[in-house]
This record gives sequence, structure tokens and C-alpha cells, in this order.
Amino acid sequence: MTYCVGLKLDRGLVFAADTRTNAGVDNISSFKKLSVWDEPGERVITLLSSGNLAVTQAVISLLSEHITTAETDRTTLMTARTMFQVARLVGSAVREVKAIDGEALAASAESFSVTFILGGQIKGERPRLFQIYAAGNFIEVCDDTPFLQIGEHKYGKPILDRVTRPDMRLGEAAKLVLLSFDSTLRSNLSVGMPIDMLLYNTDSFSTERQVRIEQDNPYFQKLSRTWSDKLREAFADIEEFEI
Amino acid sequence: MTYCVGLKLDRGLVFAADTRTNAGVDNISSFKKLSVWDEPGERVITLLSSGNLAVTQAVISLLSEHITTAETDRTTLMTARTMFQVARLVGSAVREVKAIDGEALAASAESFSVTFILGGQIKGERPRLFQIYAAGNFIEVCDDTPFLQIGEHKYGKPILDRVTRPDMRLGEAAKLVLLSFDSTLRSNLSVGMPIDMLLYNTDSFSTERQVRIEQDNPYFQKLSRTWSDKLREAFADIEEFEI
Repeated sequence: MTYCVGLKLDRGLVFAADTRTNAGVDNISSFKKLSVWDEPGERVITLLSSGNLAVTQAVISLLSEHITTAETDRTTLMTARTMFQVARLVGSAVREVKAIDGEALAASAESFSVTFILGGQIKGERPRLFQIYAAGNFIEVCDDTPFLQIGEHKYGKPILDRVTRPDMRLGEAAKLVLLSFDSTLRSNLSVGMPIDMLLYNTDSFSTERQVRIEQDNPYFQKLSRTWSDKLREAFADIEEFEI
Repeated sequence: MTYCVGLKLDRGLVFAADTRTNAGVDNISSFKKLSVWDEPGERVITLLSSGNLAVTQAVISLLSEHITTAETDRTTLMTARTMFQVARLVGSAVREVKAIDGEALAASAESFSVTFILGGQIKGERPRLFQIYAAGNFIEVCDDTPFLQIGEHKYGKPILDRVTRPDMRLGEAAKLVLLSFDSTLRSNLSVGMPIDMLLYNTDSFSTERQVRIEQDNPYFQKLSRTWSDKLREAFADIEEFEI
């Protein structure tokens, strides 16, 4: 499985993705699920992927190939003028891969499973955040629900539901997302470290706030320990239930 | 869906079950999913059920009918001498229902889905806790993992993973289970109030600590509010993540 989160906040976007892939519990490896395309000062596009690794890789390779080998009249991630157009390009790439591999996958009783979180900013627009489905269609985040999750989303949802606010600072949101990951990592083996994270400040058109958080990352270790302690303290402070 | 939890602690057993059933999102109703059979001073048997409601009701009706209409040589929930025997009786009832309804369900492309948490104590034994599967087989809880969950288990698992200790008082465990329910109820519409709860003290052979917690229960409302506040405070107390 996978766990990826995207947040759209007043100050920018936050992206995080685990790196575990598995074909059965006895075949586990690490693959990057956070992809970035950028043109400093002009556009930043980030894609988080979950699902069949062959499918997600094919979609990402297609999108990248179209940039380098584009016929002059083809719109690519680097020439699209809005994030809505970018979402349509990703959707088209999903459909293209389905047209190539879908039948053979179905014949092997393998599902064509793939979901993306797409976010970024193109000069002239505000930052935007989308979820793209296996059918190639998509939704865009609105203010009522400022986050998207794909993969093993249930363990880490309660903390996001309770704490997320659109006016959070990005560092605060990063802390929140890492807590959501910590809950998921503790409860589900199919999600694993390291975690790739990108904080995008509105109008920065820069990807410099990007980091890979390894198992031994001191902040993450301390966060995990402190959070457990604080939860237990908070728990102890509430009166017991008596029948 | 459903959410049920059973805990086996040093001091006894804790059971909780929501009451929502739904056939699609436009057909929601309340059904009790916590069943109790007891003989004061001798035995207490509790069953929490999740899955196809027709199947779980059929299993419970069979088990109850066997008690009242038993041939003298048939072992029932009220005559079994160990909880292991009780678990086998429940497993047999599941198989009996499958033999009756399984084929017709399959023909309608409906799954024979059912899972139970079974717990209790029979005089002469310690309290025991089991999970029974749709195949009628089962596992028993050991000290390494003192709780079982069925139904929508993921949202409420992180708090159980972090806080459960076998030496908890039952009132403390009840508080923990209600927090686990609160997280689930907030994030998933298919789990709904009221919650049925039973606290069983080892060697009490009594079911008097049983309660239905309604939406407007003052303890539950306060718990939910206080927990959200404390989580936000705990969250604010931890330093932000900076890249």
C-alpha cells in the first residue's frame, strides 16, 4: 500500500509520501512516490502516486517524455497555462496507459489501480490541489476540506480531521502531516519510511523546501515519542467512565 | 459498516459496539450488535457482531434457539464447560447459516460476510476473548495484543495501539474505547451512535455494568470535546518542522 497526503493552506501547499511498495508481504522495497516538475519563478508541479507501481511509473514517464520529445503543438506539464490543464494532462496520461496495459492487466486478474494527488502553482494562478482517479477524471480541493489523502488513509485521518486549519503555518502543517504518518506507520506495515516531503510557499515558485525523512531523523523520532507521551498524559487527565 | 471493540485486561473484559446498519447510504437504521447470555454467578457470554445483518441475526437466533429447544445431549451456550467450546458453538452456528443461505447469497452476488468478537467467563476458567471468522474458525487473544476490533477498525486503532495496557482499570479502558469510537464516528458515516457497552469484572459473573450511550450522553459529549481540546494543546506544544 501507500500513504500520501496533500494540504492546501492559505500560505501554500504541503505534500508528503511514504516510499514503501510491496508485492505481497515478502517482497518489500522503496520507491519514490513524490515527483516534481518545476521552472523556477514560473511553475511548480507535484504529483503523489498510489496504486500499481508499474502503472504509476508509466504515467510519470509518459508525462516526462512528452516534455522532452514534444511536438511543438502538444501541451505539456511545462507549457500548460493552468493547473486545471495540468490535471487534464495527467488524466490523459492515465487513460493512455490504460489503453496500452489495461486489457493485459485485466487478463491477469490484476486491477488497473492508480490514484494521484496533484498540486502546484503556475504563475498567474493561486496554488491548486487535485485528486486524480484511475478513470483519468479528477476533483479539486475546496475550502471546506483542505486536505487529500490516498492509500492507507484511515489511520491518519482522525488527527487531520481534528487539527487542520487553512491558516496554519507550513511548518505547523508539516508537523501535523508527520503525526498523521506516525499513526499510520505504527498501525500498518504496508506504509514505510522514509517519507518524502515538500513544503511549497505560495508565489515562491520554488521547490527548495524539500526533504527526505529517514527512520533515524531526530525530529521525527522526537515527535513520535513526544506525541505518545502527550496523548497518554491527556488521556490520564480525563475522568474515567463509570457505569 | 460497524465498529466493535473487545479488550481483555487483567481486571476483566470490556465490550463496545455501535448500532448503525446500512444498506447503501440512503437506508440507515439502528440494530443492537451486542448480545449477552448469562447465568448469574456461573457464566457470562458476550458476542459483538459485524457483517451482513441477516447472517449475524441468524447466527444469534440459532444459538438462542438451541438453548431453549435443545435435545438433552446437545451442548449449548448455557451448558458448554469452557469458552473454547462456546467459540466452537458459535463457529458451528456460522457454518450452519452458511449451509442454509450461502448458495443463495452467492447467486445474488452478495457476500457471506460476518465476523464476531466473543468474550466471557465460565466458572472454573479465566475470562477469555476470541475473534470468529466467516469460515467458523477463530483466534484467541493473547497478552501481546489485548484487544480485538471488527468492522471499521482503522480510524480507532492508533489510540488503542498507543494507550492500551493490560493493567488498566475497566473505567479507564472504557474511556479509551470511547475515544477510539469518537475518532471513528467523526471520520466515518457508516458507524453511528448509540454505543452499547459492557464492562465485565473478572469473577463477578454479572452483566450489571452494561449501558447504552446515546448521542446526548453528557460524559461522551464532554469526553469528545475535552479530547479534541487536549489534542490541539498537545499539538501546539510540539515544535514545528522546519526544512
